[in-house]
Amino acid sequence: MIVVMAPAADAPAIEHVIARLTERGFDVHRSTGAERTVLGVVGPTQELDTAELELLPGVEEVVRVSTPYKLVSRAFHPDDTLVRVGHPGNNEVTFGGEEVVVAAGPCSVENEEQIRRSAAAVRAAGARLLRGGAFKPRSSPYSFQGLGEQGLELLRMAADAEGLALVTEVMDPSQIGLVAGYADMLQVGARNMQNYVLLRELGRCGKPVLLKRGLAATIEEWLLAAEHVAAAGNRDVVLCERGIRTFETATRNTMDISAIPVIEKRSHLPVIADPSHGIGIRDKVAAMARAAVAAGADGLLVEVHHDPDKALSDGAQSLFPEQFQALMDQLRIIVPALGRSI
Amino acid sequence: MIVVMAPAADAPAIEHVIARLTERGFDVHRSTGAERTVLGVVGPTQELDTAELELLPGVEEVVRVSTPYKLVSRAFHPDDTLVRVGHPGNNEVTFGGEEVVVAAGPCSVENEEQIRRSAAAVRAAGARLLRGGAFKPRSSPYSFQGLGEQGLELLRMAADAEGLALVTEVMDPSQIGLVAGYADMLQVGARNMQNYVLLRELGRCGKPVLLKRGLAATIEEWLLAAEHVAAAGNRDVVLCERGIRTFETATRNTMDISAIPVIEKRSHLPVIADPSHGIGIRDKVAAMARAAVAAGADGLLVEVHHDPDKALSDGAQSLFPEQFQALMDQLRIIVPALGRSI
Amino acid sequence: MIVVMAPAADAPAIEHVIARLTERGFDVHRSTGAERTVLGVVGPTQELDTAELELLPGVEEVVRVSTPYKLVSRAFHPDDTLVRVGHPGNNEVTFGGEEVVVAAGPCSVENEEQIRRSAAAVRAAGARLLRGGAFKPRSSPYSFQGLGEQGLELLRMAADAEGLALVTEVMDPSQIGLVAGYADMLQVGARNMQNYVLLRELGRCGKPVLLKRGLAATIEEWLLAAEHVAAAGNRDVVLCERGIRTFETATRNTMDISAIPVIEKRSHLPVIADPSHGIGIRDKVAAMARAAVAAGADGLLVEVHHDPDKALSDGAQSLFPEQFQALMDQLRIIVPALGRSI
Amino acid sequence: MIVVMAPAADAPAIEHVIARLTERGFDVHRSTGAERTVLGVVGPTQELDTAELELLPGVEEVVRVSTPYKLVSRAFHPDDTLVRVGHPGNNEVTFGGEEVVVAAGPCSVENEEQIRRSAAAVRAAGARLLRGGAFKPRSSPYSFQGLGEQGLELLRMAADAEGLALVTEVMDPSQIGLVAGYADMLQVGARNMQNYVLLRELGRCGKPVLLKRGLAATIEEWLLAAEHVAAAGNRDVVLCERGIRTFETATRNTMDISAIPVIEKRSHLPVIADPSHGIGIRDKVAAMARAAVAAGADGLLVEVHHDPDKALSDGAQSLFPEQFQALMDQLRIIVPALGRSI
Repeated sequence: MIVVMAPAADAPAIEHVIARLTERGFDVHRSTGAERTVLGVVGPTQELDTAELELLPGVEEVVRVSTPYKLVSRAFHPDDTLVRVGHPGNNEVTFGGEEVVVAAGPCSVENEEQIRRSAAAVRAAGARLLRGGAFKPRSSPYSFQGLGEQGLELLRMAADAEGLALVTEVMDPSQIGLVAGYADMLQVGARNMQNYVLLRELGRCGKPVLLKRGLAATIEEWLLAAEHVAAAGNRDVVLCERGIRTFETATRNTMDISAIPVIEKRSHLPVIADPSHGIGIRDKVAAMARAAVAAGADGLLVEVHHDPDKALSDGAQSLFPEQFQALMDQLRIIVPALGRSI
Repeated sequence: MIVVMAPAADAPAIEHVIARLTERGFDVHRSTGAERTVLGVVGPTQELDTAELELLPGVEEVVRVSTPYKLVSRAFHPDDTLVRVGHPGNNEVTFGGEEVVVAAGPCSVENEEQIRRSAAAVRAAGARLLRGGAFKPRSSPYSFQGLGEQGLELLRMAADAEGLALVTEVMDPSQIGLVAGYADMLQVGARNMQNYVLLRELGRCGKPVLLKRGLAATIEEWLLAAEHVAAAGNRDVVLCERGIRTFETATRNTMDISAIPVIEKRSHLPVIADPSHGIGIRDKVAAMARAAVAAGADGLLVEVHHDPDKALSDGAQSLFPEQFQALMDQLRIIVPALGRSI
Repeated sequence: MIVVMAPAADAPAIEHVIARLTERGFDVHRSTGAERTVLGVVGPTQELDTAELELLPGVEEVVRVSTPYKLVSRAFHPDDTLVRVGHPGNNEVTFGGEEVVVAAGPCSVENEEQIRRSAAAVRAAGARLLRGGAFKPRSSPYSFQGLGEQGLELLRMAADAEGLALVTEVMDPSQIGLVAGYADMLQVGARNMQNYVLLRELGRCGKPVLLKRGLAATIEEWLLAAEHVAAAGNRDVVLCERGIRTFETATRNTMDISAIPVIEKRSHLPVIADPSHGIGIRDKVAAMARAAVAAGADGLLVEVHHDPDKALSDGAQSLFPEQFQALMDQLRIIVPALGRSI
Repeated sequence: MIVVMAPAADAPAIEHVIARLTERGFDVHRSTGAERTVLGVVGPTQELDTAELELLPGVEEVVRVSTPYKLVSRAFHPDDTLVRVGHPGNNEVTFGGEEVVVAAGPCSVENEEQIRRSAAAVRAAGARLLRGGAFKPRSSPYSFQGLGEQGLELLRMAADAEGLALVTEVMDPSQIGLVAGYADMLQVGARNMQNYVLLRELGRCGKPVLLKRGLAATIEEWLLAAEHVAAAGNRDVVLCERGIRTFETATRNTMDISAIPVIEKRSHLPVIADPSHGIGIRDKVAAMARAAVAAGADGLLVEVHHDPDKALSDGAQSLFPEQFQALMDQLRIIVPALGRSI
C-alpha cells in the first residue's frame, strides 16, 4: 500500500502517519521527493481500510498496490489451470485447455420430453455439457420457479442418455448437497456472486464451480469471489462473463468481451461466456457467441430449447436447435485462428 | 403493454401478432396511423416477456406501460404510508410522518461498553433508533464477521437502556426468527435486495422492514423488491437509498439523492438515506446527510461510533459523537424549510 | 407517442391532456382499459418534450414509440448502404459490402519516414486505407498537438505511394475545406459526436464521413448524430464503435461489441470498430479486433506504428507491424464463417 | 508515479524498467519488499502514459500519485478562490464567499417581454445574476437555435434594468469576442467541457468562466478542464455540477451531489449546481436545489420562466416565478445551518 502525503504535509504529520502504521505492525518505507513524501506500507494491508488512512492529517491519497486475491492470481501461479468436469472415460471434459468447451440446453428443465429432445439436439451439434435450471431465481413471485429435485433427476437422465456432463445452478447453501448428488458442475448465478456463505460452502463441495460475474461487479471483485471458493479448498473454478449494467438501454446488459483477455492476463482460471444472458435476445446471440470465442473464451454457455416459443422461461433468448447447429458450424471455422478446437 | 409495428409491417404480420396475443388471453386494441400501426395489449402483461414479442416479424418495439408493482405504487394508494416501529408509549417512532427519524449507531456491535456508550451518545443528540450489526457480510473471509446472537443481546440491552427502538440486519432466512426476537425493525442489505427467498420470508415476519437499494438496482427494481415483501403480507417497508455504482471513482458510490423525490412521487412508502455508506468517508457524511434531508428524506441511517479510530469495521465512515451532535444541530435548522421536525 | 394516464385520472384530466395536444395540431387516439386510459399521439412528436406532458395532472408516463431518426433507419430503408471511399480504378474501397475493410496506421503522423514505413507495413498486411492524425485533441496542453497541414501532405503522399485511401480526423468546421482537399474520408472523433455545427458542415463536404461513438452516447444518440449528417445532404456515413464509459476500471473503456449487431438491425449504414481505443493497451487489441469482426463488423480501424515505443502519442495501444500482420492472418481464417472476405 | 513489479519479476526486468525511466530523465526510487519491488518515479510524469509502462516485462501495475492538475488544486493553493463577477458598486457579486449566489432565468431568451418579466421575477425573489441562452446547442436541427446577437442585447438590457450580472453560454471560439462584449460571465456547456480550443481561448478572454461538468466526466477530468482555462491565464473559474449519466432511467441524469464536498476538498475554486438540468423535470427541481445548497454548494443556476408552458425550450424543467420564490424562501431557512447567507 502506498500513502501519498500532501505537498503541504509537515514532518509531524508524516511522523504521525508512520507511527500509526508501525503501531499496527506494518513496515513503512519512506521516500522523499522534491514535492512530496510517499510512504510504502508492507504487511497484511488487505486488513487496512484506505479511507481510514485518508482521514489522517496531511494524507492526500492512499493506493493499494497488491491485488487482494492470491490463489487465483496469475502473478502467483503462472500456468493455466485445467478444470476437469465429469467422469474420465465417460463424459469428462476439460476447461482451460486446447478445446473450446460448449455447455448448452434450456433455461429451465420443464418435463422429460423437453429435456431429452434438447439434450439430444445440443449433443448432435457438438455441446459437451448439458445446462438447465432446476432451481430458478425469478423477479416475479408469480413466475415458474423450477421443478426442484424432480428437475435434477430429469437433467441427470437426459445428460446420461447423451453422454454429456451436467452443470446446473445452486441458489442456497442448503441445496448444495442435493445438487452435488446429481450435477457434475455447480453454477453460481450473477445475483449470488457476493453471497459469501454460498461461496464458502462451495469451497468444500468437491465439485467444480461455474462462477458468473455479477451485474455490477468489477473484474477485481469477481476474482475476489473466486478467491473465496479457492480459499475454502476448491480451486476448480471456471469464470463466466454474462454482461454488466451500463447506461445503454438497447440491450438487456452490455456484454464485456474485453473481460476475457483481461482475465486471461490476471488469472490462471478458465473463463467462458454466456451470450444468451449477455445480449438477451435470440437474433443477436450467435454474433456475441462468435465474438467471445474469437476474443479467446475457453468455452460458452448457451441457451437452446427444442421449441423456444413454448419455453416457460427466457424463451426469447433461447436458440432453436438449427440456429445452435449453425453457430457451432461457424465456430468450427473460427477456432483454428486461435490454435484451438471445438 | 404497447406493441409498435414497423412501418414496413404488412397486414399478415400484424394479424399474426394479434393472433399470438389473443391466443394467450390478452385483449388487443389496434390503432392505425399514417406511418405505422400500434397495438395496445390489455391483461396480465407482467407475465409477457417483451423480448419474445420483439422477435415476431414486423415488430419494431415493445413498451411496458403499467408499472410492474402495484401494492407499493402511489398510483394505487395515493396516501403516504406511516410505518410504526417499536412499542407505543415506550420507544415507538413513526417513519413517513412529520418527523424526520434518525437511526444511528456503530457499524457492528463489538462489546458492551462500545454499544452502551454509542447508544447514549446518539440518543443524547436526538436519534430515535439504535442501529448496529450482529451479522456482517464482509468481502474478505479474514475480516470480523459480527458477534451473532450475543451481539443481538447487547444491542437490545443498549437500546432499552436509552429508550431507543432497534434496527439490525438479517442476512439469511434462517436468521429471521432469531433477529426478530430482539429487533424492532429488520434491515435487508444492498447485496440482498434481490434475495427473493429472504424477501418472501420477511413478508411473514410481523416486523417492519428496512430495505436498502442494491448497488446496481434501478428505482423500479427496488420498488419491485419492496413489492415482494408486501405481496407476502407485510406492508411496513421503509426504503433506504445508499448509493449506486457509476463511472466516478472519487467516491465509493454515487449517492442518488434524486431517488428521494422520485420515490416520493411513485410510492407511498417512506424513504430514508444512509449517507455513511453512500459517500464512504467521514469528512463528507454530514454534507450528504444534510442534502438527503433537504431533498425530502423521511429519515437517516448514520454510522456513529464512540471511538471510530478503534472500530473493527467501517471506522473511516463513522462519525465521532460530537460530529453527529453538530450534524443534528444543523438538521434542526434545516427541517422547518420542509415543514418538518426532527 | 403514447401518453399513459394514471389509474386515478378522471375524465376532466384526460380531456385536458387531449385538448392540449389537439391545440398543438396532433391527432389523439384514445384507448380505455379496465385500469387506465392510454392516448396515442400522432404527428411530428419529435418536437414534443415528454417531460412537459408528464407534468400535466393525471399523466403517469409518456413513451416515445417512433425512432427520432429516419434517414439512417433500416425501418425506412431496408437495404444496406454501401459507402464508397477513394477513386474508382485506383484506391477505391467499399464499406458495407462483402469485404471487411481495414484502415490502419499510426495515431499521429510524425515525419516522412514514420508515415511511409507505417503505410508500407499496413498495406503489406492487407489494409485498404491509411489512418493517421494531423490534428489531435489532447487532454494536456503540453502534449504533441499534430503537424497540421504538413501532416496532411505527408499522409496523402504515403497513402498514394501505397495505393491506399486516406481517412483522417477533422476537429473543427474551419478545418473541413483543408482536410477534404487531402483525405478521402473525414473522421469525427468521439468528443465531437454531438458537435452539431461540425456535423452539419460535414453534411455538405462531398466526402464520406467516419463517425465515432461518443464515450457516453447511447446507440440512439449515435444514430441521431448520423442523422444530422444525412439531413444536411450526405448519406455516406460509416459508424465506428470505440468503447463506452462504465464502472469497470480494468480497461480504459468498455468496448460495446453488442452495438455491432444492434446497429446492423436498426440502421442500413455500415459499422466498423476501433479496438485500439476500445481497449487501450496493445496486448489486448488483437483479441478485441477478432471479436468485432466475428460479431459482424464491416471493418476495423487499427493503430499500427512501425516503432510504437518511439510514438509521440498512443504508443501503448499501437501494434507492431508483425502483430498487425498476425492479426490479419487470423482474420482471414475467421471471415469465411460470416461469408465474407478480407 | 508508482510502478509495481510483479512478484515473479527478476532483477534484469527491474533494471530494464529503471533504465527506461532514467533514460527519459526521471528519478527512480527503489523499494524492495518481501513479496515484490515497488519503484517510485519522480519528474514530469504527466507526460508518461501508464499503459506504456504496463507493457514492459515484469510490470504488474502503474499508479499515478500526483494529481495532473496544479493551478486549480487545493494542495498547492489552500485558500478558497473568490470569483468576482460584474461591476463593483453596481451589479457585482462574489462566488466562493459567505453568500450563496443564485443565477436564474429562462433557458433561452425569446423576446423582450419574456426576458424583462423573467428578469424582474428572479430579481424580486433574490437572484443576483440573470441567466439565459442566446446560442443554444440542440439535438434536433429543427429546434429553436437561439436569437444570437439580438438575444445578447435583450439579455444585457434586462439584466441592467434589474441591476443583475449576466451569465450566458458561448459555444465556439468564434463567439467569444461577441459574447464577452455583453455578458459578465461566460458559460461552457457540458458537451464542450473537453473542447480544448474553446477552453484555451476563454483563458484569454478577461471574463470569469462558468464551467459545467460533462455528462461522462470524472471529477478529475473536470478539474483538468478547469486547469486548461487557468493555464491559459484565467483563474476566475466557477465549476457547475449538472448531472452525470448512469444506468438509472427514472431521471434524465443522476445529479452527483457528492461532487460538491469532493470538489471543496480538492480544489480552491467555487462550485455551484444546476438542478434544472440535473433532474430535468420541474416538480423535482426544488428538492435538488435544496440538496445542493445543504451539501455546501456556493451557488445555483436555476431555470425560471415567467410562463414555462409557452417556453420555446426546456419548458418542462423551468420553474414558475412563484415556485422560484418559494424555493428561495426555503433556502433562506437552510443556509444559516452552513453559516452562510443568500
